[in-house]
Formats: sequence, structure tokens, C-alpha cells
Amino acid sequence: MNIRIGQGYDVHQLGEGYDLWLGGVKIPHTVGSVGHSDADVLLHAMCDALLGAAAMGDIGKHFKNTDPRWKGIDSKILLKIVVEMLQKEGYKIGNIDSTVCLQEPKIGKYIPEMIQAIASVTGLPDNCISIKATTTEEMGFVGRKEGLEAHAVALIYKDLN
Amino acid sequence: MNIRIGQGYDVHQLGEGYDLWLGGVKIPHTVGSVGHSDADVLLHAMCDALLGAAAMGDIGKHFKNTDPRWKGIDSKILLKIVVEMLQKEGYKIGNIDSTVCLQEPKIGKYIPEMIQAIASVTGLPDNCISIKATTTEEMGFVGRKEGLEAHAVALIYKDLN
Amino acid sequence: MNIRIGQGYDVHQLGEGYDLWLGGVKIPHTVGSVGHSDADVLLHAMCDALLGAAAMGDIGKHFKNTDPRWKGIDSKILLKIVVEMLQKEGYKIGNIDSTVCLQEPKIGKYIPEMIQAIASVTGLPDNCISIKATTTEEMGFVGRKEGLEAHAVALIYKDLN
Repeated sequence: MNIRIGQGYDVHQLGEGYDLWLGGVKIPHTVGSVGHSDADVLLHAMCDALLGAAAMGDIGKHFKNTDPRWKGIDSKILLKIVVEMLQKEGYKIGNIDSTVCLQEPKIGKYIPEMIQAIASVTGLPDNCISIKATTTEEMGFVGRKEGLEAHAVALIYKDLN
Repeated sequence: MNIRIGQGYDVHQLGEGYDLWLGGVKIPHTVGSVGHSDADVLLHAMCDALLGAAAMGDIGKHFKNTDPRWKGIDSKILLKIVVEMLQKEGYKIGNIDSTVCLQEPKIGKYIPEMIQAIASVTGLPDNCISIKATTTEEMGFVGRKEGLEAHAVALIYKDLN
Repeated sequence: MNIRIGQGYDVHQLGEGYDLWLGGVKIPHTVGSVGHSDADVLLHAMCDALLGAAAMGDIGKHFKNTDPRWKGIDSKILLKIVVEMLQKEGYKIGNIDSTVCLQEPKIGKYIPEMIQAIASVTGLPDNCISIKATTTEEMGFVGRKEGLEAHAVALIYKDLN
């Protein structure tokens, strides 16, 4: 089979004194996403979906959260490295779909900018990247605004010849 | 690539005075799913998986929960609209798979009826629709019966020629 | 469409006096996974992703948790039965990707052994099986170490002729 699928799931705490990076875009908000890198939960879930589809491990394996190289790093750089790892193995990306779960703020208006950022890093056409958003209706750790999470799936393939 | 994948995730609170709609079927229970529409968490997750696969936004974008047109609406109508949006872009649906997470009641016996309802709305054969169910073992907001959630994935495609 | 996708999601409580089986491997830890079978949350999510892709119901339907046959059973046997059910319908497995969510212990070092176990049971090549791992950053029931969960996706297909 020349087609493969992957899924990613990532979680970060929200806390004061951090920026809220999502999909490669800095979103103005009173709290931000806590982590070793810029803690971009959406790009991390996408990285994991791509790595998983290619059976290449996960983001924690390739970008250890104890490695000073990745301290505060822009996750767009991590996504770019992941895409290059897949290309080196002959994989192309078909499409990526995702959902960000976040109680607040509303992020819908930032999604076009996120898609542009991801298209720019991955070289994918805009219409191969999808970002959806939902609250968790004030329930759970997302609903209590303790954190946020993202789910992603990706389809990758190799050309048949 | 003529094949694309999508995922959906939706959450609703459970509350008294509401009906419990799931997969287009009204399930007898002491509490129901709280929302602006009929709050059918499974059909919403399926809508989002289809929209996401086609990179057409999400259910919150197309059916705003502040729009009086969607107040109390049967989510089968929303699913029908989503399927027609995809068809207009030349997409066909391959298959949809899903999991409902709900502590109680047991919903297994209603699944054949849900599949019929979804097949009827989407025009898909029964064997292209799958609904699974699980509790969350009394943990989290699902386990505490505060709410319910659904995960879905969908494969869509365009015919080659 | 000769290609189909599925997803699985499973949850178990962690408790004293139980073994921690994950991906067919027994992991040394102070608590284990609570359930009727060996409660291997990862293999259960994989079983559900495969069954869901084939629209063949779910693990709860085929292996009822009230059936003494499955009491304490090695979930590798359940996975083997699921793979055989799919084969009987003419399906082949393309690839499986997954994420285990667990606050502790770190399981990265056990993943190669899990992949070997799953490859052995399913007959899949190693590079068609992917296992990722994440904590939930000390939030939710996973973060509080009350339980663990796993997400999986699978691609299956029938040969065209």
C-alpha cells in the first residue's frame, strides 16, 4: 500500500507569563501555552501525525524536552524538520486535518493565518491543511481553562511508478 | 492525491430537560445532550470529519450556535447539508468510523438504527458507516456523567480520470 | 473505494494489584491497568480501529466484558482474532498509528518491544506499526494518574484486480 495514515494528540497547560502559539501564530491572550519549546499544541499534533504515518517515532523522541537546542524554539522549525524527514524517505503529504480544543479565546479568525503559516513551512497547498476548533463546553481540563489540546490526522503517500 | 482524510471531535454537556440524540436517534434516558441544535455529538463529529477532510472549515463556522435557523435543529439536516457541500466540490465519501464516549446508558442496541439513519441521510451503504461505543471507566467529565463526546474519522475521494 | 480508515479510543483505570500491559508487553510499574481482560489499552484501541475500518462493530461487541472466556485474557489473542476477522472479509492492513497517554512511567524504551509483539501477532512488517506516547501534563484523569488512554488509527484495503 503506497498510502499511509497517522494521528497526533498533544496537550499543554495554560499559564501566565507564556505566549499562546497556535498553528504557528501568536494569539493575543491573557495566558499562554506552557512548554519547553513554544508549546504550539497544534503544530505538535501535526508533527506527530506525520511522524506516526511514516512510523518514524514521535516528537518527544526527535525533539527531547530536555535538549537545550529546542528551548523556546518556534515549532514551525520542528514541523519543517519533520516534513524534510518524510521527504528523505520518499513520502509526500496528501492532507492534514486537525481540531484544537480550547475553552477561550475564540480562535476562528486566526485560522486562515495559521493555514498560511503551515502552508509556507510545509510547501503544501492551502487546501491540503485544515484546522477546526471547539470548546469542551466548560468540562474537563480544557473546559476549566487549565490547558488546551489538539487532535490531528495526516495522509501521506509515495508515488507509484 | 485523490484521497483525503479528516477527523472530528465533539463534546456536549448532559442535562435534565434535554433529549439525548445520538446518531440521528432519540435515546430514552433521564438526561439529554445540551446545545443550540439537537446537540447530537456523534453527527457533529461526523460533520466535522467530512468538512475537515475537504478542508471546508468546521461545523461551528457553517452552523453558528447563535443563528436562530439552527436552534433545536435535527442534526441529520446539518449532516445532509455537509454531504451536499462535499458533493458540490466533487467529493465522494469512502467510509466513516466513529466512537461515542458515554458512561451511561448502554447504546449498543441503538447502533443499527443510527447506522440506518445516517445511511438514509448520506446515501452511503450501511457498511461504509461504523459506530463504536465506550465508557471512560467512570473517569473524567464523561465518566462523571457531566457530558459525552464523540470521535470520528472519514475518508473521502475524487474519482480519477 | 478499496481503501478504508478506522479509529479507536480506549480508556482504563490504573490500580494496585494489576499488571500494566501495553502493546502486548508487561511494563514494570507500581500500578497496573484495571479491566476484565489484561486491560491493554493500546491493543484495545488498535482492535477498535481495525474493526471500525471494516465496519465490524467494536471490541465490546465481540469480546463482552462479562464473558468468562475473556477474563484476564492476553489482548494479543484478541488482536489476532480481529486480524483474522478482517482477513476473512478480504481486507489487508496498510498501517496502524497510535498514541498512548500516560502520566508515568516513561514507556519510550518499551516501544520497540511492543512493535515486535504486534508485528508478530498481526503478521505486519515493523514499519507498518507506529506507537507514540505522551503525558497529559498532569491534567485530567490521565494527568492525575487515575487512568490511561490510547488513540489509534488504521488504514485497511482490498486488492484491486
